[in-house]
Amino acid sequence: MRVVLIRGVCAALRSSFPVFPRRCVRAGGAHSRLVLRAASATSSTGTRAKLTTGKFEKLSPEEEEEEADSDFSVREVVQSTKEAVVTLQKNNPATQPSLAILQLGEDDSVLEINKKMAGKMGLNVTQICLGKDCTEDEILEELLKLNDDPRVHGVYLHLPPAALTNRVLNSLKPEKDVDGISDWNTGKLVRGPLSTGFVPPLASAVLHLLENQEDSLEGKTVLLVGGESPFRLVLQCLIERRGMVTAKSHWDSKSLEREAAQADAVVLLDAGNVDIPPNWGRLGVVMICCETNLETGISVLLSNVVRSCTRWLQEQQYKPWRLRSLKLQPLTPVPSDLQISRAQTAKPVNHLAEEIGLLPEELEVYGRSKAKVRLSLLERLNSQPDGKYVLVAGVTPTPLGEGKSTVTIGLVQALSAHLNLNSFACLRQPSQGPTFGIKAANNLVAAAIDARMLHEATQSDKFIYRLRLGIIKSDPSSLSPEEVNSFVRLDLDPEKITWHRVVDTNDRFLRKITIGQASTEKGLTRETGFDIAVASEIMAILALADSMEDMKSRLGRMVVGTSRSGTPVTAEDLGVSGALAVLMKDAIKPTLMQTLEGTPVFVHAGPFANIAHGNSSVLADKLALKLVGEDGFVVTEAGFGADIGMEKFFNIKCRASGLRPNAVVLVATIRALKMHGGGPSVSAGAPLPTEYISENLNLVSGGCQSNLKKQIQNAQQFGVPVVVAINVFRTDTPAEIDLVCQLAKECGAFDAVPCHHWMQGGRGAVELAQAVKEATSKPSYFQFLYDLQMPIVEKIRTIAKRIYGADDIDVSAEAQRKIDYYHEQGYSTLPICMAKTHLSLSHLPERKGAPTGFVLPIRDVRASVGAGFIYPLVGTMSTMPGLPTRACFYDIDIDPITEEISGLF
Amino acid sequence: MRVVLIRGVCAALRSSFPVFPRRCVRAGGAHSRLVLRAASATSSTGTRAKLTTGKFEKLSPEEEEEEADSDFSVREVVQSTKEAVVTLQKNNPATQPSLAILQLGEDDSVLEINKKMAGKMGLNVTQICLGKDCTEDEILEELLKLNDDPRVHGVYLHLPPAALTNRVLNSLKPEKDVDGISDWNTGKLVRGPLSTGFVPPLASAVLHLLENQEDSLEGKTVLLVGGESPFRLVLQCLIERRGMVTAKSHWDSKSLEREAAQADAVVLLDAGNVDIPPNWGRLGVVMICCETNLETGISVLLSNVVRSCTRWLQEQQYKPWRLRSLKLQPLTPVPSDLQISRAQTAKPVNHLAEEIGLLPEELEVYGRSKAKVRLSLLERLNSQPDGKYVLVAGVTPTPLGEGKSTVTIGLVQALSAHLNLNSFACLRQPSQGPTFGIKAANNLVAAAIDARMLHEATQSDKFIYRLRLGIIKSDPSSLSPEEVNSFVRLDLDPEKITWHRVVDTNDRFLRKITIGQASTEKGLTRETGFDIAVASEIMAILALADSMEDMKSRLGRMVVGTSRSGTPVTAEDLGVSGALAVLMKDAIKPTLMQTLEGTPVFVHAGPFANIAHGNSSVLADKLALKLVGEDGFVVTEAGFGADIGMEKFFNIKCRASGLRPNAVVLVATIRALKMHGGGPSVSAGAPLPTEYISENLNLVSGGCQSNLKKQIQNAQQFGVPVVVAINVFRTDTPAEIDLVCQLAKECGAFDAVPCHHWMQGGRGAVELAQAVKEATSKPSYFQFLYDLQMPIVEKIRTIAKRIYGADDIDVSAEAQRKIDYYHEQGYSTLPICMAKTHLSLSHLPERKGAPTGFVLPIRDVRASVGAGFIYPLVGTMSTMPGLPTRACFYDIDIDPITEEISGLF
Repeated sequence: MRVVLIRGVCAALRSSFPVFPRRCVRAGGAHSRLVLRAASATSSTGTRAKLTTGKFEKLSPEEEEEEADSDFSVREVVQSTKEAVVTLQKNNPATQPSLAILQLGEDDSVLEINKKMAGKMGLNVTQICLGKDCTEDEILEELLKLNDDPRVHGVYLHLPPAALTNRVLNSLKPEKDVDGISDWNTGKLVRGPLSTGFVPPLASAVLHLLENQEDSLEGKTVLLVGGESPFRLVLQCLIERRGMVTAKSHWDSKSLEREAAQADAVVLLDAGNVDIPPNWGRLGVVMICCETNLETGISVLLSNVVRSCTRWLQEQQYKPWRLRSLKLQPLTPVPSDLQISRAQTAKPVNHLAEEIGLLPEELEVYGRSKAKVRLSLLERLNSQPDGKYVLVAGVTPTPLGEGKSTVTIGLVQALSAHLNLNSFACLRQPSQGPTFGIKAANNLVAAAIDARMLHEATQSDKFIYRLRLGIIKSDPSSLSPEEVNSFVRLDLDPEKITWHRVVDTNDRFLRKITIGQASTEKGLTRETGFDIAVASEIMAILALADSMEDMKSRLGRMVVGTSRSGTPVTAEDLGVSGALAVLMKDAIKPTLMQTLEGTPVFVHAGPFANIAHGNSSVLADKLALKLVGEDGFVVTEAGFGADIGMEKFFNIKCRASGLRPNAVVLVATIRALKMHGGGPSVSAGAPLPTEYISENLNLVSGGCQSNLKKQIQNAQQFGVPVVVAINVFRTDTPAEIDLVCQLAKECGAFDAVPCHHWMQGGRGAVELAQAVKEATSKPSYFQFLYDLQMPIVEKIRTIAKRIYGADDIDVSAEAQRKIDYYHEQGYSTLPICMAKTHLSLSHLPERKGAPTGFVLPIRDVRASVGAGFIYPLVGTMSTMPGLPTRACFYDIDIDPITEEISGLF
Repeated sequence: MRVVLIRGVCAALRSSFPVFPRRCVRAGGAHSRLVLRAASATSSTGTRAKLTTGKFEKLSPEEEEEEADSDFSVREVVQSTKEAVVTLQKNNPATQPSLAILQLGEDDSVLEINKKMAGKMGLNVTQICLGKDCTEDEILEELLKLNDDPRVHGVYLHLPPAALTNRVLNSLKPEKDVDGISDWNTGKLVRGPLSTGFVPPLASAVLHLLENQEDSLEGKTVLLVGGESPFRLVLQCLIERRGMVTAKSHWDSKSLEREAAQADAVVLLDAGNVDIPPNWGRLGVVMICCETNLETGISVLLSNVVRSCTRWLQEQQYKPWRLRSLKLQPLTPVPSDLQISRAQTAKPVNHLAEEIGLLPEELEVYGRSKAKVRLSLLERLNSQPDGKYVLVAGVTPTPLGEGKSTVTIGLVQALSAHLNLNSFACLRQPSQGPTFGIKAANNLVAAAIDARMLHEATQSDKFIYRLRLGIIKSDPSSLSPEEVNSFVRLDLDPEKITWHRVVDTNDRFLRKITIGQASTEKGLTRETGFDIAVASEIMAILALADSMEDMKSRLGRMVVGTSRSGTPVTAEDLGVSGALAVLMKDAIKPTLMQTLEGTPVFVHAGPFANIAHGNSSVLADKLALKLVGEDGFVVTEAGFGADIGMEKFFNIKCRASGLRPNAVVLVATIRALKMHGGGPSVSAGAPLPTEYISENLNLVSGGCQSNLKKQIQNAQQFGVPVVVAINVFRTDTPAEIDLVCQLAKECGAFDAVPCHHWMQGGRGAVELAQAVKEATSKPSYFQFLYDLQMPIVEKIRTIAKRIYGADDIDVSAEAQRKIDYYHEQGYSTLPICMAKTHLSLSHLPERKGAPTGFVLPIRDVRASVGAGFIYPLVGTMSTMPGLPTRACFYDIDIDPITEEISGLF
């Protein structure tokens, strides 16, 4: 019997696992045949061969006939693969497992068999034919494209040995190496487990045959004859891993027949070009003649493609976290923030991303510790239920701040690193670097406004028309000169431009300026001002948008001023909205960072809490809620006291996002409570009065009964349970803390607990984490405070009375005029974003506790139409801070050699 | 003979390659011993064992004595490793090969042996002891630190099997896996080649013994007895790779003795807990008893550490490139830039970086296609000779531009992708994103100026003093009130503040503005303006700095204005220089990108070419010159015509960098030459006159004899050879091109060639690349045009007469006053940066060709003291462009779903 070693799968195997054909005794005599239940030995084209099993025996004529159609292994593989595809597509109708064949030249033989078989199984096959003389680089280029293509689940390198270099081989993504030939895969095969690797088709077929013998071969000896490492070694290893014992011989061995007789099964490894001794027919052992067979090889290769596709789909599914938290070594006394931060080594951000189930293609890494996360994640985890949504708010603060951000961080550290519950903190970002896109976008609008006014003032309708400003929606020739005029001119009223430029430096001298004084601007001077970048409406839009599309349309709706005829002029009218969206395309992706304990944080968007809503982004929260999974927690913080940040979180942010909160953590300090209980005034820079550093239960009690109680009730008006978190300071006494816990619960809090995260990290917030877990396990009955259909004035009044405790509101004439104008323009269904001091529930910063008997003055009303809210001004709101005389830049420095920065904390 | 399986290296091996002890016939009879030339079998502590070789034979009493001191393998390894360390340290005295042992608990036994042996060899050993109950995460945390630590060359995971999980094992960097136990390494061992992997110590020892037999075992049979996969498989593979044949048996085999007798060598694999049959002594074959031995294991482990260290040092050396260029498919007609760009898939930037020899730790990846390159590269490749340095300049251009940037790109594509010569393009960067640091820094200065003036105007000396502005250098109590006054007050003259704010949008209305008009600024209004961000002096500093230290000191020297008493006030005086350096710490790193053909480009810094020097950064050039290697090319471009950009490149940039150029490529177009030869005027937006689109040899000749000739001579004044590159347009005729080539050479050009890169990519610039290669192979005699010690006026005059062809200069009174002031202040040795029109060699844009008989008027003179040049103003220089009526932002848009951007080209 002459068996033929053929090209095909085997070519690839040969190049990676060289097989050297050996000569042997020529087979003779027709009285016995090795073939049993297998495909015909040769075909007319010589391109087919067989992988056979059996014992030597005579075939009856009937059996010989049956033979041709009884290639059981291929049929079986085809059948089971087909079923796997059906199962796979039941849940993922859009996905079709796909194999790409990369080959040199246009030979289609492999493709044909592949396509035929793939068609039977329901797979897709693509063939990439490179020129026969193409370079390694060109092969790599195509290979890397296939690596990156999510529609390709397996790659078959149908290349001649010379082209299948180590560099090519090991450039193939292991996940797509369905032929199982890379170093990485070989390591997996030898060391196990195989859950991530692929068994090479030939080895797979041998194993299949060995395992499907009538009499189990477990514990029995399998003799491997011939073959060369490394393929033989891999096979040996796989056979042994399945509980069989292997022995090894070679074709030249004098005792080969005896060795074979002693074995329970014999695998003839490089039988391709050798003839099998005819007398072996008498041995009576299981005999596997391991020549490669294109069909068998391809069938198994395709089953590997389905396996790869299944794994890929599993990858796309929500994955439980495998968070590696970082140990914190709290010191006493607590060192500076800078020292603490330097003492920890952050995980590389791609490790963190992998731990929390992000896919590599969803990440845009920026340096070692930051990465942007793509919004495509929302689509991938679309069906994944959201986690619990927790807001951290606070009592009305002292001017020193009461630690909402540190509670947020302590809480997620406790949840993730100590209670082993998935959690994510979503925070606002500082104003410097990340606001770049916003600033650029904002100032583009400003430049466009002034340039437009100049050009309209100095150029004819005809000239401007010729340049086709904006998008022409109607047939130009059909327009009258008046129509052309109104079409090409926005006719902005220079007195009524509300749009400001921004910078990201505290630059008070830009608060009010006159621009256009150069002679080139032809006397078109006007007064305007700069705001700090975070005060831009674009920042509020970034924080409220829930997709690129939503952001783009909000940007277009931004009103920049009014025409002389009184019509609002928008960014869309200026023709800049597409350009603005381009400038914001990276800013819209939340930035992944980590806490000191290695738990994930999204840092994204930071709108002002007075003229805007003071909350981090909707998108970061949405991504985080998917990532933490159903039993996880997303903790986000709202700016200022609960009367401002929390109210806006509920009425503006939750309205925009459609998300529903499960609990509120209300941060209180003994210091703030004492202030609200009647303590002397607290101011930055001055030493704290003694009331604040020694026990005073009366003041504490007074603060609890007034401000704390009112803020708890404020949260309850929205139907959300409240956990009070006491941010403990060194000078607080146990009696003070106990008193707050007791009174808070009496005032309606679900729970109240002290937190020591500032000193101890996450460990110090475990009690809070447990309380939050408990609170969120209860059903929540969230409701908005007001209906959007209410008139603007009524919405303002509702907030003033129900949240601030005012008797009523007093709307100035100017404010009323604006309200009427907004109503006319159709903006009256927007929610309200109050611009009020955060230092009191009332409009008077000095009135602490829970003031009553006041009327809230509404000085003016403005609108951020793009962001989507009306903002009444209760006092004067600065949108451009100044630098103090002793600015912190004096202390900031960098060591030019080590690049270590000092003075930042 | 009883042999003991001991802990140690073996513990690690066991966990990765499980070894199951088997019982066997107990050894008896003292007449034969397996041990020959080996260490004593046991020691009193039981912690030592042996790796032995030999044949069974009786030992004479003398031999028994010798035995204890003849552990030849360990001694040999120690000796050769020691020699390797000496060799290694001869070239790298600062490097000591280091092993880190990561273990649980404080057991020091391994450390002791390690330290003793490492001491002998000259290695360093560190031990990291984690708590016995530490988690997988904690082990990983330490492991990742060791991965990242460049001082650690090998890691030995001395962990119990339960702690040595797959996750831990495969987190170890393969380059540091000196124990050879990871999947990746196993794959390497099985598949080869081993140049990047490590042979596990035990396998290494066995191979060593097999290879050092007196009679070579090549082609002979080695019987492996016992042992379990995967270790046995790895060993089998390594033995076969060395030309021996392996056979395999197991301790239970009934024919073991016969099998052993038939082999040429026997390796007893899990001899640890078994007794060797005494009658084997008669077999007379080479017998290796492969129990593990702590000393042997450690000695080989340490030799692997030295190997790892050597590889690491090689990694640090300059590496030849292995650039994978991308194929370009030029189309006719040439599609839009956007279409061409979309049709190519860029290589991931980390692939590109690896190809050109950057180390992973030198790269800060930003997204997929951009990365910042760390300056530490300069130190690493300190001793590497620079490549050739080529400047691309141009003839005096038409207002349409003549294609210097496209020639630059075409040239490097031709060099790298077609001639296979390393090359790097260094380009200026566009103004938008990357200038963020500059803008923030610039505006911080501006804000600091105005804030300082306000605080000085409204606060007492004492108050300011208390806040300790800046750094106090002397004892405060020793100062008189006058001294305090001059110490705390800069007393800036508001009329003499030269510092402008910047934005990165063309915003003409900010050219001249009045600031400080809000009531909070107390009437301290003043006139000032905004420049475009790239016009900031900080941009010029970024481009000229050659280190972080240099940049910081240049930033500190920037003069922002003058005090009322006439002293220059610097950024250092304002106390902001440290903060500025911090803001610029990322901007200073050049950005790595690639051409369409996959060749590397640095994009870094883009100072104006009029008020600044118009060249990309010194640092990018320096990094690139090291990376391309001695025979490589760095091609950089200078702004405007050669009379401006090239003159500044030589006199300012090369002076700052110390780099010497090897050739100038002078770009000319038939269009520009015709204009200089007397053709009608060319202006943007208007159709080209017929002279420019049909053959006109007269005009071409005129342009060559005037402008081209003068610009060639300008380069020659600096002693640098010139290659004229004709950027060919579709309408240019062969006769015109030939004429330019002929005349250019007659005018002194080294060569002159046509370029078709715009249509064909790199292939179209191969002729240019060859000419450049030829030109740079000649010696260059570079010299500066003027000496810095010359008076300012003389330096200006030299440039005007020798480069522009002026008869003389005419210095205005204002200019002379400034020159005198700068001289007084000690700035007169700075080089000169002329601010002149680029549209003519003279100051009159309409005078084309090579004008003569003119006197260059010097209207005003300014200084960028930080950047380090004086800039005379010849005309009016706009530092803030305006937006055109039909601004490009109208066309820019983004598809919210695909995120595809349109309108950018």
